[in-house]
Amino acid sequence: MTTKLTGVCTITLTPFDDCGNIDEASLRKLTNFYIDSGVHGMTILGIMGESHKLTENERLRVTDIVMEETKGRVPVVVGCTSRGTNVCAMLAKRAEEAGAAAVMIAAPAGLKNEDMLFRHYEEIAKQISIPIVIQDEPVTTGVIMSPKFLAKLNKEIPNCQYVKLEEAPTTVKTSKILELTGDNLGIFGGLGGMYFYEELDRGAIGIMTGFAYPEVLVKTFEKFSNGDKSGARDYFYHYLPLIRFEAQLGIGGVTIRKEIFKMRDAIKSAHVRFPGAAVDDRTLDEVKELINYVGLTTVSS
Amino acid sequence: MTTKLTGVCTITLTPFDDCGNIDEASLRKLTNFYIDSGVHGMTILGIMGESHKLTENERLRVTDIVMEETKGRVPVVVGCTSRGTNVCAMLAKRAEEAGAAAVMIAAPAGLKNEDMLFRHYEEIAKQISIPIVIQDEPVTTGVIMSPKFLAKLNKEIPNCQYVKLEEAPTTVKTSKILELTGDNLGIFGGLGGMYFYEELDRGAIGIMTGFAYPEVLVKTFEKFSNGDKSGARDYFYHYLPLIRFEAQLGIGGVTIRKEIFKMRDAIKSAHVRFPGAAVDDRTLDEVKELINYVGLTTVSS
Amino acid sequence: MTTKLTGVCTITLTPFDDCGNIDEASLRKLTNFYIDSGVHGMTILGIMGESHKLTENERLRVTDIVMEETKGRVPVVVGCTSRGTNVCAMLAKRAEEAGAAAVMIAAPAGLKNEDMLFRHYEEIAKQISIPIVIQDEPVTTGVIMSPKFLAKLNKEIPNCQYVKLEEAPTTVKTSKILELTGDNLGIFGGLGGMYFYEELDRGAIGIMTGFAYPEVLVKTFEKFSNGDKSGARDYFYHYLPLIRFEAQLGIGGVTIRKEIFKMRDAIKSAHVRFPGAAVDDRTLDEVKELINYVGLTTVSS
Amino acid sequence: MTTKLTGVCTITLTPFDDCGNIDEASLRKLTNFYIDSGVHGMTILGIMGESHKLTENERLRVTDIVMEETKGRVPVVVGCTSRGTNVCAMLAKRAEEAGAAAVMIAAPAGLKNEDMLFRHYEEIAKQISIPIVIQDEPVTTGVIMSPKFLAKLNKEIPNCQYVKLEEAPTTVKTSKILELTGDNLGIFGGLGGMYFYEELDRGAIGIMTGFAYPEVLVKTFEKFSNGDKSGARDYFYHYLPLIRFEAQLGIGGVTIRKEIFKMRDAIKSAHVRFPGAAVDDRTLDEVKELINYVGLTTVSS
Repeated sequence: MTTKLTGVCTITLTPFDDCGNIDEASLRKLTNFYIDSGVHGMTILGIMGESHKLTENERLRVTDIVMEETKGRVPVVVGCTSRGTNVCAMLAKRAEEAGAAAVMIAAPAGLKNEDMLFRHYEEIAKQISIPIVIQDEPVTTGVIMSPKFLAKLNKEIPNCQYVKLEEAPTTVKTSKILELTGDNLGIFGGLGGMYFYEELDRGAIGIMTGFAYPEVLVKTFEKFSNGDKSGARDYFYHYLPLIRFEAQLGIGGVTIRKEIFKMRDAIKSAHVRFPGAAVDDRTLDEVKELINYVGLTTVSS
Repeated sequence: MTTKLTGVCTITLTPFDDCGNIDEASLRKLTNFYIDSGVHGMTILGIMGESHKLTENERLRVTDIVMEETKGRVPVVVGCTSRGTNVCAMLAKRAEEAGAAAVMIAAPAGLKNEDMLFRHYEEIAKQISIPIVIQDEPVTTGVIMSPKFLAKLNKEIPNCQYVKLEEAPTTVKTSKILELTGDNLGIFGGLGGMYFYEELDRGAIGIMTGFAYPEVLVKTFEKFSNGDKSGARDYFYHYLPLIRFEAQLGIGGVTIRKEIFKMRDAIKSAHVRFPGAAVDDRTLDEVKELINYVGLTTVSS
Repeated sequence: MTTKLTGVCTITLTPFDDCGNIDEASLRKLTNFYIDSGVHGMTILGIMGESHKLTENERLRVTDIVMEETKGRVPVVVGCTSRGTNVCAMLAKRAEEAGAAAVMIAAPAGLKNEDMLFRHYEEIAKQISIPIVIQDEPVTTGVIMSPKFLAKLNKEIPNCQYVKLEEAPTTVKTSKILELTGDNLGIFGGLGGMYFYEELDRGAIGIMTGFAYPEVLVKTFEKFSNGDKSGARDYFYHYLPLIRFEAQLGIGGVTIRKEIFKMRDAIKSAHVRFPGAAVDDRTLDEVKELINYVGLTTVSS
Repeated sequence: MTTKLTGVCTITLTPFDDCGNIDEASLRKLTNFYIDSGVHGMTILGIMGESHKLTENERLRVTDIVMEETKGRVPVVVGCTSRGTNVCAMLAKRAEEAGAAAVMIAAPAGLKNEDMLFRHYEEIAKQISIPIVIQDEPVTTGVIMSPKFLAKLNKEIPNCQYVKLEEAPTTVKTSKILELTGDNLGIFGGLGGMYFYEELDRGAIGIMTGFAYPEVLVKTFEKFSNGDKSGARDYFYHYLPLIRFEAQLGIGGVTIRKEIFKMRDAIKSAHVRFPGAAVDDRTLDEVKELINYVGLTTVSS
């Protein structure tokens, strides 16, 4: 039986100790922290999870630990992006074996030929029976996926059931995709959560992002889903200054997010593997200020 | 005597009629509209002003009309970016002759060699006596300018007195530049105004952006400058949902901004020259909604 | 009556004097030099012609002089690339008025959306009655045009009758296009002439490149056209060391080519407008050596 | 004791069987084939070796087999490029343990910040005692390394003893680097071998490329090293049509090279892992023709 993905499938961090080794205890703790904050799913081993700086064995280990710890409480999407189709497929098969609800796969960097990109997804899809979340990631990969191409993937490859958007404006792209696919292709928003309300209003089924207060996105989603659009909007806009602040850091956001999760006592160390954009002390002060400003706290309850 | 640039030097639109010809009457009206909204300066012929879709004669004509209409009430910065050093210099000289307070110049697209880029600015600087605003524009030009390089330009070329930042995070970049330059290099923020409060707090002297309610940025700046940081912040965050919404559209923002200025009766037509990212009807509805939501109006007073 | 383009439509230089002004006398002399070397056409105001460093008035002036000087002896293709559709169209209309046989137009830099790119060509095509040479120029523009897209342009826009290829391998791309278009789309090779024999063998109708000994390409083409493929190949490979040498310089090739044309007494100064890749003295010595090695001379006859 | 790298350190292929699994027997046979053709070194797990489509375990396995089979007859350079510094360092340490003479490391894709890139090399260097070949690979990585930056790496990080150039023109870059480093930084040419003679003449100590007839490059190098520059040049230019032909295929060259090595009976299958640029039948015919044309043979002796 397939779990239907929906809601806030938070992009997760990979905690390290101060020496840069995977901190398994923190990873378990963090997994529970996410679930306790109400997320509807977890998306592990994305860019925010520093998957490109993990060895393959570490990727598998992280998958196993998260699967063990979630114990089926929420569906887990496993990032399996790699530059070779066979390596992607291998990672995807192992993710399925480990119990993943779906795999998330971006285009191989620089693969701008649509026919080849189509075949990439097709070859992987053949080897697994769980859904694929197509990761639209133009900045990192250099590959732009048009609504037409995404619709084609969805129509011709049964596993291609979801897309996580990153190409701005995600709102307009959401509408264009839905016009072409009806609701056969489930759309998750992105962009650090900056347009979550508007994405939902356009028909997105949820979001995949790593905002350090996932409970805020969860509550936004729940209000919206329960028909309280106006309440969802007010609530969401209240936290916008903070969401926006994190979003500005782009890839560097992993550092600030680790700092916040550390302050919230969800992980032990904020260590980010190199190369990772450093964040200056002032940024850290600014974010603390902003957390207070919007009425949140870094003290875990 | 040189005018010191500061505050909100709004990036201006170039109004066309429905056939795509420059609408000089609207350009005059819009110029007054900007000044009436309190801007401290105008930055014409930037990307938002569609300068890359104007002929050289049109660029000169727009400059002349704006200079005539401002009558010295606010300083005018003229965008003079071009791929050839000599064309830049020619445009810069004409801007100076026309009465510009400064010229704004981005790197020629693709010119990643720092020695050549330095010489580009140096050659132009020699031919004018007004300041240059270095336009940091990595997305459009493919050229990244490090704080160190910007400091070198500022130190070794007297005209290079300002920089307009676009590389995120502008907050961190602002601090890094100030460390290297003291306050010899005046920093203007960008990114659609999304981080204006934080940029000011880091030491930016103002902002250059095209947000369609410049009066909001003006008031934010004035509160901040008068020492009311907390008031500036509250005020700025109140309008953040709208600022953020416009910012998502990137280059496409010119269309939505033209629509708003048309609704505000500052220009006659929202025509954007091709190629320009279209905006769907829903986006237009969303922005109207948001304008109301934050308590602004499209009816000009 | 339309002239059918074919053979060596050499990409021409724009000669300047040592101060960087257009040297009209040299431009006239060079035009005759090209024609005397047997070229079947001239392609002016391409990248090699430094068109991006000319003012619009200079572009028009260069066109007029070349048209005057050729006196219809060879067809002239005029480069009209610009970032705005209307500016392209304006330049194209003036080129037609001046007597151009065709215009050459690359994609606006960064315009990766195929629907918009299609419309760009469509809008320009409507305003002229001469053919368009689609300039495939992925490195400079960042835009990749697939054989399918080129075939669509050719099929749906009558003026789009030619393409000048630059995406390697041009041989394979030539075959793919011909499969889709029959011979409705005339294909010109590029890449500095490095694969001219192979391009012809795949069905290209000629080449557009700026190699400083166009007579070598002319003779290769004539042998090939006269059915002497083997002779064409032997002849072409003999000069390959030199062709390859020039090709390595990429955009920097303009400098070395100007130096050679100066040595050949076709122009007075080798001045290149800034920014232009400089060539070290040793490169100049190397090229002189190679010219001798392959049995050519820098002394004009 | 360190082996000094020099001459033709051929970039090697990774042979697969028709199902895409590593063909260990072919890998051993190919290793001997390279050595028998006289190469002075082998550079394994580069882009041509499809290292980005191998699992980490496969990378280690390939290293072990090649080390076993070479038995110290030629130095082996092991490609250890990865996006994370720690993964690079891990691969580099294992390469050293396996007996590698050096490791080759390109910039992490997109890491354009020079300070971070410097630290990347510094961190890896600390963990190994063998030399690093800095792989200049702008097209694939998006990172340009200036002569000044390369000289700084060489001066401040003792292991950074070599660079393999790919940024055209390699001739000019070679001279610029030598001016800054004397001969402390050993320079290997690249670009498919297209400028090998000229690179040597500028002071390169050898070449790293995957041309399918390495014996041609070896003989060129030997003639040159023995003082017979003119003989080296004549010999090299004779084979230029073929070298150039392979070079046009860029990344796609791996396919044609595998086909040739298969014809030469050095490997069993020409399988290339997906995504890999396909080569049409005609290209295969063309290359066979060219092999005959230049007097080589596909029949192994």
